[in-house]
Amino acid sequence: MEEDEALAILDQMRIEIDAYLEALIEEKSQIYGEVAIRSGEVLLAGGKRLRPIMVLLAYEMAGGQNPEEVMPLALAFELIHTATLVHDDINDQADTRRGQPTIHSQAGEAKAIIAGDWLFVQGFGLGGRYREEVVDVMANCCAQIASSEFHQLDHIMDLTTTPEDYLEVVKGKTAGPFSAGCEGAVMIAGKSKLHSDALANFGLELGVAFQLVDDLLDIKGDMRMGKPRGADVYEGKMTLPLIHALTLLHSDERVRLGAILADFKDEYFEELIELLQRSDSLSYVEILVENHLERAMESLKIFDESEAKNLMKYIVSKVGSRHY
Amino acid sequence: MEEDEALAILDQMRIEIDAYLEALIEEKSQIYGEVAIRSGEVLLAGGKRLRPIMVLLAYEMAGGQNPEEVMPLALAFELIHTATLVHDDINDQADTRRGQPTIHSQAGEAKAIIAGDWLFVQGFGLGGRYREEVVDVMANCCAQIASSEFHQLDHIMDLTTTPEDYLEVVKGKTAGPFSAGCEGAVMIAGKSKLHSDALANFGLELGVAFQLVDDLLDIKGDMRMGKPRGADVYEGKMTLPLIHALTLLHSDERVRLGAILADFKDEYFEELIELLQRSDSLSYVEILVENHLERAMESLKIFDESEAKNLMKYIVSKVGSRHY
Repeated sequence: MEEDEALAILDQMRIEIDAYLEALIEEKSQIYGEVAIRSGEVLLAGGKRLRPIMVLLAYEMAGGQNPEEVMPLALAFELIHTATLVHDDINDQADTRRGQPTIHSQAGEAKAIIAGDWLFVQGFGLGGRYREEVVDVMANCCAQIASSEFHQLDHIMDLTTTPEDYLEVVKGKTAGPFSAGCEGAVMIAGKSKLHSDALANFGLELGVAFQLVDDLLDIKGDMRMGKPRGADVYEGKMTLPLIHALTLLHSDERVRLGAILADFKDEYFEELIELLQRSDSLSYVEILVENHLERAMESLKIFDESEAKNLMKYIVSKVGSRHY
Repeated sequence: MEEDEALAILDQMRIEIDAYLEALIEEKSQIYGEVAIRSGEVLLAGGKRLRPIMVLLAYEMAGGQNPEEVMPLALAFELIHTATLVHDDINDQADTRRGQPTIHSQAGEAKAIIAGDWLFVQGFGLGGRYREEVVDVMANCCAQIASSEFHQLDHIMDLTTTPEDYLEVVKGKTAGPFSAGCEGAVMIAGKSKLHSDALANFGLELGVAFQLVDDLLDIKGDMRMGKPRGADVYEGKMTLPLIHALTLLHSDERVRLGAILADFKDEYFEELIELLQRSDSLSYVEILVENHLERAMESLKIFDESEAKNLMKYIVSKVGSRHY
């Protein structure tokens, strides 16, 4: 598939999803007032809509014939994703999200907590219309997000965090929703468990790669909207490049890295990157990204060729360079 | 129905519900760890289980033959209720709940927000297994809770709050879940819309009466676990007795009441009660309680006589004196 063609189709899907989300917020604002309006401002502030796009593509890949059937699940995952962002931003005391002021910075924490709850409820309202096994996939995914967030909090500024701790958190928090969205979509399309398991695995591998790229971008810097370089480092989040370097570096270098992380400042950035290069940590994570993306690609093999499958492959190819 | 007999049956129901909740937390703690354990501590710290009991009774009243069928809905409403308590306690900065330390006071706000989310997810996971119209009742109810909480926050310390503002909040936040639980249970039992509407109305009337009694107890004091007298007044919550008095009192008395509420201290309690007696506000609310309870009773008329109906009537009779 040509790059231009893929981009055009994915952009068209994003526009369609945005239209559904706008219509939802428009309708709900009439009923629920300010909580819907404020939640809608965050929801509609942009975003690539990668999660709902993947749900739609998974459904089509699995032979689903009626996109309307799977759209509520696609929207549900975007709503739940936004709910977690709203609550995360309170915990991280972030002032902006997607280039807009966060709810808690404008309306206070109390309203931000409630707005997040409201977004969760909208997501579950949409997802709850499917049969029990699909609802279970979604509910287990969301419960696991919460569990992983607990672990993540426990490892803030914990220099002894292991790669295993890290992967547990990433699988639960970032990769889990990709996985559950793909799995649920295949179930709704009525394809076999072999196929839903394969796409659950696909989502997991892609999701891990996605987070690893995020970790790299936090250090290398990029154009991500509203997230400055080093945000994770400032928050004390133990990303994999840091964990890897803390494990490999010795004596003075290890001590210096610990000291830098304990009280990070902008002027330490060059030194941090030098230390990470001493331990080859950025290359290590780059190789891991490729491994996870290869395994994601592998999981697609049992599906027949289709435009949807080609688009999914295109997404995989772009996650490494984070154009998607 | 004899009082002793009713109490014994309701107590037996509570014990059964507790057993289900304990088993749920036991199972989920294995999977989700600390977030499930901490959430479980609040969930299992006691409580009358009035919401799930009403769901079970509504189902039986409507001719439902298999309590197992409705139990997930009953538990869902208790889980969602507890989720809102966990998040409310953050916003109210409450240190204890049901006689136990609150999650945020022990583990910090970040974990308390996430634990509340986890409880919501468990509730929706259970409620999401029903057909779409039942899920819609639950989702609308939860979205309305959030909307009403926004309004409640807007009226903190707002001496111009009207009885209409008040009722909107109470219907959404307190009465809504009673109403939705009863309505959903009748739908699951397969009874007509006439019957589900009647019990939705029953739950609404009972729920409003329940909140009005709560308002009275906040001023008159009682043995409510973990909630000291005057807690609402200290938090600046505009309860109906206060709203009524602010509307009826004139000149000096109105000014004095405003001043007392603006900076409440324990030593003002007697004076506050004197002012409320001048405007007859406590009697006014007591009469309203009776009116709502009568209308609740009225809504039960279209149901055939049954033990479940007698128990529901018993609950109505006890809400006035808040033994239930």
